[in-house]
Amino acid sequence: MALFSSLTPLFTAIICVLIGVILKKKNGEREKRETKSKPLSHPWVDEDLKDCTDHQLEEEEVDEGWQGFDENIAHVPFFAERYSEAEMIKRSQEFYKLLNKRRSVRFLSDEPVPREVIDNVIRTAGTSPSGAHTEPWTFVVVQDPDLKHKIREIVEEEEEINYKKRMGDRWVNDLKRLRTNWIKEYLDTAPYLILIFKQVYGRLPNGKKKTHYYNEISVSIACGILLAALQNAGLYTVTSTPLNCGPHLRVLLQRPANEKLLLLLPVGYPKKDATVPALTRKPLEDIMVVM
Amino acid sequence: MALFSSLTPLFTAIICVLIGVILKKKNGEREKRETKSKPLSHPWVDEDLKDCTDHQLEEEEVDEGWQGFDENIAHVPFFAERYSEAEMIKRSQEFYKLLNKRRSVRFLSDEPVPREVIDNVIRTAGTSPSGAHTEPWTFVVVQDPDLKHKIREIVEEEEEINYKKRMGDRWVNDLKRLRTNWIKEYLDTAPYLILIFKQVYGRLPNGKKKTHYYNEISVSIACGILLAALQNAGLYTVTSTPLNCGPHLRVLLQRPANEKLLLLLPVGYPKKDATVPALTRKPLEDIMVVM
Repeated sequence: MALFSSLTPLFTAIICVLIGVILKKKNGEREKRETKSKPLSHPWVDEDLKDCTDHQLEEEEVDEGWQGFDENIAHVPFFAERYSEAEMIKRSQEFYKLLNKRRSVRFLSDEPVPREVIDNVIRTAGTSPSGAHTEPWTFVVVQDPDLKHKIREIVEEEEEINYKKRMGDRWVNDLKRLRTNWIKEYLDTAPYLILIFKQVYGRLPNGKKKTHYYNEISVSIACGILLAALQNAGLYTVTSTPLNCGPHLRVLLQRPANEKLLLLLPVGYPKKDATVPALTRKPLEDIMVVM
Repeated sequence: MALFSSLTPLFTAIICVLIGVILKKKNGEREKRETKSKPLSHPWVDEDLKDCTDHQLEEEEVDEGWQGFDENIAHVPFFAERYSEAEMIKRSQEFYKLLNKRRSVRFLSDEPVPREVIDNVIRTAGTSPSGAHTEPWTFVVVQDPDLKHKIREIVEEEEEINYKKRMGDRWVNDLKRLRTNWIKEYLDTAPYLILIFKQVYGRLPNGKKKTHYYNEISVSIACGILLAALQNAGLYTVTSTPLNCGPHLRVLLQRPANEKLLLLLPVGYPKKDATVPALTRKPLEDIMVVM
């Protein structure tokens, strides 16, 4: 036993070296294969969203199966509905008026909302474009009161830490006022919480990782469409990103490791006594430049 | 002259040490000031979008002037339009039907589009929520044919490099087919190109940098709302992110250094013979989880 023990480090070292040699050989094979397949790589890059995730991910994470997008897919004629110019102007004005009434509302009532409307707004979000048509989003709709409360506990605990870490002498005696900053009643009262996860990578049938290019931009764009759909349906929300809660909430909601929480939207009707900050929006000339 | 030359390194060293001492003292003062102002820092963090940019930016880039958001702003009652449940369901269905007709269209005609519609869709995008209400977006609308052509040259040159770098033996003789991948006629033909810049930081009246938290998520959400507004108006686009062209295009369009190109949307009507890839979208059960 003693002899075996003293030999163990040696054995381990030998095994490590052997594994290293095997892995190196395997890598060499893969490199060869990849060099061969390089020409096929990303033929779709001009076709869809591209962003920094392109560079963040290792080349070997891209599987060849991924490359088929542009090569094999058929192209079909596209016919678009056409409005008169007057109609276009009117429609664009009315849509602006509707969306301009949207505000982030933090005081949501517990009145029930038809589930069908939630289904439809998420269907609508799912029409968003995405990098290489990966559709890298999961919308987790939480309606169970206990689960909503657990989410509230996780979010408030983290928020309390965020606030307390930032607090100094001046505010120590002003806890009451600051309290409202990390108390999020809407996480209990809103009939639905929509937690939006970005899938940072996917899996191919052969188990290999499939890179999801531009997943954050894609999922954020889908959220913009979701916000428009909510406003169109007469529902309100506040666009929040629970700081540091992502991993905890992901485990609570049993989402796989390739998904990361991007946004949390509590959805419902405003309370009767809801207030909003008296903010204004930048005028068109401050956000648009015509050349 | 020779003496001066030989003394130069010594002088340089002394000057460097002195500068170091001065800077250290200044930093110390700043640290003191910051410790004092810490309690006021980010009182709004739960109020709006938060993301990784929060951690990427240096603490000293945040100016105290930035903190007034939640402290001084008045809150006003909020009254929302209310639809019947039947209306909500109908509205949400119809909006889904409208948005589900959206496709990324790469074949855009040169037919003119009323400028008023473009103004309205950008106004609509400007209603998007943003981290701490920074509204960190600039929409550059290019209608000048020469400028559009210059943009095309820049984008195509970079795309050609992107493609050629990826090309191997197998494709060397198949240039013609691949050519379509980096040739972007729509950059000339579309009556408008909308280039969307994210403002990664702003400037306060005192010249200090103002952190724009969550600028990429915020601007992407605004783009989602823009895409919905375009579809509602009967206009088509392809959501593209010109790889590596950002700095070149920023200079061409005379945008300041705090702005980075996020997306480029050519906007117009589809050509009569436009085609789209025969893609389908994931069904609701693949993108939504209800708990």
